[in-house]
Amino acid sequence: MATVVSIIGLGLLGGSLGMALRQNKYQVVGWDRDPEATALALELGAIDRAADSIEQAAAAATVAVVVATPVMAVRDVFQAIASHVFPGTVVTDVASTKRQVTAWARELLSEETPFVGGHPMAGLEVAGVRHARADLFEGAVYCVMDEPDTPHWARHRIELLAGAARARTVKMEADMHDHLVAGISHLPLVAAAALVQTTSRNPAWELMAQLAATGYRDTTRLASGDPVMQRDICVTNADELRAQLLALSETLKQAASLLDDPEAIGSWLGEAKAARDAWLDASTKFRRAERS
Amino acid sequence: MATVVSIIGLGLLGGSLGMALRQNKYQVVGWDRDPEATALALELGAIDRAADSIEQAAAAATVAVVVATPVMAVRDVFQAIASHVFPGTVVTDVASTKRQVTAWARELLSEETPFVGGHPMAGLEVAGVRHARADLFEGAVYCVMDEPDTPHWARHRIELLAGAARARTVKMEADMHDHLVAGISHLPLVAAAALVQTTSRNPAWELMAQLAATGYRDTTRLASGDPVMQRDICVTNADELRAQLLALSETLKQAASLLDDPEAIGSWLGEAKAARDAWLDASTKFRRAERS
Repeated sequence: MATVVSIIGLGLLGGSLGMALRQNKYQVVGWDRDPEATALALELGAIDRAADSIEQAAAAATVAVVVATPVMAVRDVFQAIASHVFPGTVVTDVASTKRQVTAWARELLSEETPFVGGHPMAGLEVAGVRHARADLFEGAVYCVMDEPDTPHWARHRIELLAGAARARTVKMEADMHDHLVAGISHLPLVAAAALVQTTSRNPAWELMAQLAATGYRDTTRLASGDPVMQRDICVTNADELRAQLLALSETLKQAASLLDDPEAIGSWLGEAKAARDAWLDASTKFRRAERS
Repeated sequence: MATVVSIIGLGLLGGSLGMALRQNKYQVVGWDRDPEATALALELGAIDRAADSIEQAAAAATVAVVVATPVMAVRDVFQAIASHVFPGTVVTDVASTKRQVTAWARELLSEETPFVGGHPMAGLEVAGVRHARADLFEGAVYCVMDEPDTPHWARHRIELLAGAARARTVKMEADMHDHLVAGISHLPLVAAAALVQTTSRNPAWELMAQLAATGYRDTTRLASGDPVMQRDICVTNADELRAQLLALSETLKQAASLLDDPEAIGSWLGEAKAARDAWLDASTKFRRAERS
């Protein structure tokens, strides 16, 4: 039996995963609701062949079906594929939030179809298979969900796929995942958008914009990301994200109250620098890039 | 008479300006309260010669004295040099806030010494003359203060220096400068620190830190900057910055209130993306780097 992975949704993540898996001898079948994306994925070598339908894509997989659509589309995909997945083939996904998709999997997938949620922590501010690259996940953290009822062999399969893409797997439960990424991924995203909202609404924005430099550019970079993905993140992780947004809102008020006291604001800024530098030092992947 | 520029404070900015000016046939005299910084500046070619004292540095300048110390040290420098600057030599600075230094100049400098505040909008997350580079200001915006009583010839001199460093000058009054940079420079700075404070105080920070990726890295980059410069910015632009911090705090609460409504949060995120993309498109300097 050939080791076939089917990828449903051929965007940046689905296409990049396809390229990486093909380099590792997996056969990759692809399907996207947009025939042009499917054709481009074939042309760019992201998939070996295109399925004629989502059902056919689901049925072709022997190893795993990777659902790589926006989060809010995952439920419909599960419904469409549920009765077509070969018994024992694992279903996984690459969405940024995991609690909601895990609930949908429990609700809709067959008991013979283990679901192992996945979240590769890699991305670009561009969307679409035309930006796909085989090395997108190289060195990135790839969260693999490990619920109390997840079969060990099923999780191991998804860890092998992530490893084939040269990502570093970390296992956790979906609830913990959504709590953690609310802080270090979703909060920065909405904070970047809030920074743009705040500055661009300023009556002096036209002049401000001319002075904005690399600091503004980098701090707001995430605001230029895929708006559908961002919206889906907000909606499917609303409770955790709300708590983080309100915490940041309070932290900003605290900072505002310290501005007239050089010692207090200096020590507050120093704490932040120390925490960030310690994180950066531990993240060897980034250290060389930023400090060089 | 040789065209001598004296630079007081030989850090990243002072050193880089010295290198750029020397490449443009200016003679550069340097002084730093730290003799090691002065020696290194000489060794790295950031200055032609070292002054023995701050007074001697001030007296040597025929074109301009550039005060390139942290903001909070500028007052003491003005006091030390006031009676030593040659009549008609212009004093300028490179600090990130301009209202406070302009007030100190009015208070302390002689009437025969025009002051023209300057603010090159360039920097790195590293400090010290050892990181200085002649191209640091290339293509950057260089704000040159133009108060109602600023002599045209004096402003023109500073614009020539900025041009020699291949920066793009923009003139404005100090009050307007501090209002504008509070939004697009100081707010991102404190927001980055607040983001680090909020996440690193989270009980799950140890796990969060392992998942934090490029989004967290870039959004928080400014938090790793020079803490003395950051503190001085906060203290000398407290009123403008406080207003911006409270505005961002409110914007975050607004975002938190929209999370359960896909349409509302989607349109809010879309607005931010549109504003940021429009800014990026207008900033030709950054466009190629980010979109490539």
